[in-house]
Amino acid sequence: MNRSLLFKNLDYLFNPRTVAVLGASDNPEKLGFHVMKSLTAGGFRGIIVPVNPKTKSIMGIDTCSSIEDFSGAVDLAIIVLPAEVVPAVFQQCERKGVKGVVLISAGFREIDDPRGAALQHTLFELADRAGIPVIGPNTFGMINLRKDLNASFTPEFSLIRKGDIAVVSQSGGVSHLLGFMAMRQNAGFSKIVGLGNHLNVDFSEMVSYLMDDPDTRALALYIEGMDRPGRFMEEMKKTRFTKPVVAYKTGSSRIGNQASVSHTGSLAGRHEIYQGAFKQAGVLFVESAEMLLDAAHALAHCPLPRGKKIAILTGQAGPGMAAADVCESGGLEIACFHAKTQRLINELLGPLAMRTNPVDMGPAWYNTPAIEGTIRAVLEDDSVDAVLILMMFASANRGAVAGFSRFLLEWKQQKPVVGCLLAPPGIWDKEIDQLEAGGAMANFPTPERAAKALSILWEYQRQISRL
Amino acid sequence: MNRSLLFKNLDYLFNPRTVAVLGASDNPEKLGFHVMKSLTAGGFRGIIVPVNPKTKSIMGIDTCSSIEDFSGAVDLAIIVLPAEVVPAVFQQCERKGVKGVVLISAGFREIDDPRGAALQHTLFELADRAGIPVIGPNTFGMINLRKDLNASFTPEFSLIRKGDIAVVSQSGGVSHLLGFMAMRQNAGFSKIVGLGNHLNVDFSEMVSYLMDDPDTRALALYIEGMDRPGRFMEEMKKTRFTKPVVAYKTGSSRIGNQASVSHTGSLAGRHEIYQGAFKQAGVLFVESAEMLLDAAHALAHCPLPRGKKIAILTGQAGPGMAAADVCESGGLEIACFHAKTQRLINELLGPLAMRTNPVDMGPAWYNTPAIEGTIRAVLEDDSVDAVLILMMFASANRGAVAGFSRFLLEWKQQKPVVGCLLAPPGIWDKEIDQLEAGGAMANFPTPERAAKALSILWEYQRQISRL
Repeated sequence: MNRSLLFKNLDYLFNPRTVAVLGASDNPEKLGFHVMKSLTAGGFRGIIVPVNPKTKSIMGIDTCSSIEDFSGAVDLAIIVLPAEVVPAVFQQCERKGVKGVVLISAGFREIDDPRGAALQHTLFELADRAGIPVIGPNTFGMINLRKDLNASFTPEFSLIRKGDIAVVSQSGGVSHLLGFMAMRQNAGFSKIVGLGNHLNVDFSEMVSYLMDDPDTRALALYIEGMDRPGRFMEEMKKTRFTKPVVAYKTGSSRIGNQASVSHTGSLAGRHEIYQGAFKQAGVLFVESAEMLLDAAHALAHCPLPRGKKIAILTGQAGPGMAAADVCESGGLEIACFHAKTQRLINELLGPLAMRTNPVDMGPAWYNTPAIEGTIRAVLEDDSVDAVLILMMFASANRGAVAGFSRFLLEWKQQKPVVGCLLAPPGIWDKEIDQLEAGGAMANFPTPERAAKALSILWEYQRQISRL
Repeated sequence: MNRSLLFKNLDYLFNPRTVAVLGASDNPEKLGFHVMKSLTAGGFRGIIVPVNPKTKSIMGIDTCSSIEDFSGAVDLAIIVLPAEVVPAVFQQCERKGVKGVVLISAGFREIDDPRGAALQHTLFELADRAGIPVIGPNTFGMINLRKDLNASFTPEFSLIRKGDIAVVSQSGGVSHLLGFMAMRQNAGFSKIVGLGNHLNVDFSEMVSYLMDDPDTRALALYIEGMDRPGRFMEEMKKTRFTKPVVAYKTGSSRIGNQASVSHTGSLAGRHEIYQGAFKQAGVLFVESAEMLLDAAHALAHCPLPRGKKIAILTGQAGPGMAAADVCESGGLEIACFHAKTQRLINELLGPLAMRTNPVDMGPAWYNTPAIEGTIRAVLEDDSVDAVLILMMFASANRGAVAGFSRFLLEWKQQKPVVGCLLAPPGIWDKEIDQLEAGGAMANFPTPERAAKALSILWEYQRQISRL
């Protein structure tokens, strides 16, 4: 299949007007039930066509007995049927002019039986001839949050906030993990794509497609192993630094590597080789799901720092020290303020405060102008490349975040501002949402993770400079 | 002051029948308002005595004009008054027979002015003469969650679940951080103690006291610097391994170390020296607030593994691989099951599953007996020292956790069971609470953090064996 047809049809796949569910069910024991629930409860605004010859209607929607019975055009077919009937169904899809397929069914290349691999090869040829991009097989599906399209067997994915990070993952488990983590720390995704056994849509295709996706500002990849890593690296080099790409790869351990072969049929390969090749290709390599989410969140919300000199402005000394340790070990340095900046801060904060960098704004909790003035002075100081703002809620400082957020939102951002503003659930959520949605800063669950995210922005800046 | 008097009075301090608030206020701009709110909203069941000569009643409670005006005995005095009046107030407390003080006021050793240090020295002598243990000065206070006693200026601390971890911290900011983290991941605390500038209650006293505290199973310390580290190490060696003690120490960086001096007046000192001395004293050293909470949570809920052979039972392959990598780098090894165990698992799980360790229970999502049987077989296999259970929610496996939790609760636990059971908020919360409250397992927010927590249990076991 040529690339331009593939990408044109991927556009239909992610933005369909009509979606058919082949294997739709009203039995909660079946995945076809959950897929129908994902589409309907997720608020999809196009036409949903449940296909099931044995039932008249599912979730209040009339069924068709086959996809070809539906009178209108179908852009996306989601298939949740036993593996052995899928080739015949693919041919129906081709005749119907379906543009894209999400193939949830399992029982292909991942099983021990060689018939699985043969079946997958048959599907590959059918899809190629028909020019149909296929997400899967053996996937939970995909979600285009910006279009309220949840084409997966997990309706709860629709609870994730709409955001700028596209997740492309070789594991359904890790996609769910990232989704639930995002819910808990209010990170937002544009798309979540479960590659499964990747018939004809693999990392290379998804990365190329997402580089032109207006909804996506950063890519987060979860990788177990690759069949053709060289091809991926070539693809990456073509588009590198167009948008930041972060990768988390498991299989560094002996056991993890063996498990990868069993899981997706792909050899995980030597961890260090991947790491080196990824760096060359401009991909940022991280070591955990938390770091994958944090790095993508920072890259989606912040410009890169021009240098390594940072300011730490903290509401309490302890979290500032914790952050300072992490920043220093991540290659960042604590900026020495210009004399004018330091003078201004000394005037604004009382003599009880630690006023040199890291600046303890604690004694100014009640004093919004002092906090705002300190932040402004530091942002305007050209000896500062990035700013870390830390504030633990403590009742008495309840108003502090609202106090400085208006200024931060108005400030035309040219430096990264990363923070850990942390309160019991519900207290600062609105202010933090506004700050992140307004592009004023990226927020993280702990001071150390905020500091690490800032270190990652700097690491990425250096990676760009070297290449 | 002799130790037995100190500990007797600390008992009153943490379990008072009557609490007086010197500096109580009905003005939300004052800390004395928040302290009153903490006590009343936190549900303290003893008598609360607001002391304020200018107001008749605060939050519906009649005030006294001085502590000596109150007719009954006062066990605990919380002081939120300007530093310069505190010596006179201490003398009133002595005359009144107060057993313990929480001194929230700032303006002592931590300020640049030498009068601060002089004032602190005066207080030390007064408290010593009177035999009164003092938490603080310059602290947010302390919370005894098991007694619904919130003696701090942050009422929201009462939202933390009652649990078995005692937090002793040199930073108010880090105490708040740990509290809000605990709320988000449902960890529970017994006590939270903010040492502040530690007049006569420092880490040594708190660790000794908590070793006999029936509500506390594990201690989590946040340390910036110590005045007399040798004394702490001696104290620790006396009681080491009675209960696990985990320490997170900042100030490893140049800047962090400087900040420590300004913050608490204590030199952070060489990080490596602390690390070595702590190990000798049986204290587990960790590198972040997340690890501090995770390690204490694991140690409070699990027995230690007798060896390094673990089983990974996972609902999805990807999270299992991520966990395997972390376990391996933490010195754990993937157990090779007994032939009998493997045969049983092969029978229980279908041929589609990865059935060797790490075991992918994915295809058995719907099959509670198969999951339960697999967990049982592995727990009963004496080639397995610890078990990691991972399960990402996916709609179709909604019932899986309830399915195996009954069995886990009944199983007489002799091996650590650590898990990452993760779902959108509200879905598995009840089951996970029951599992943790029943001592059946410890749960963590990501597979990697669960694996790291298990590695920490093993590290602690080795630390014990070596000493």
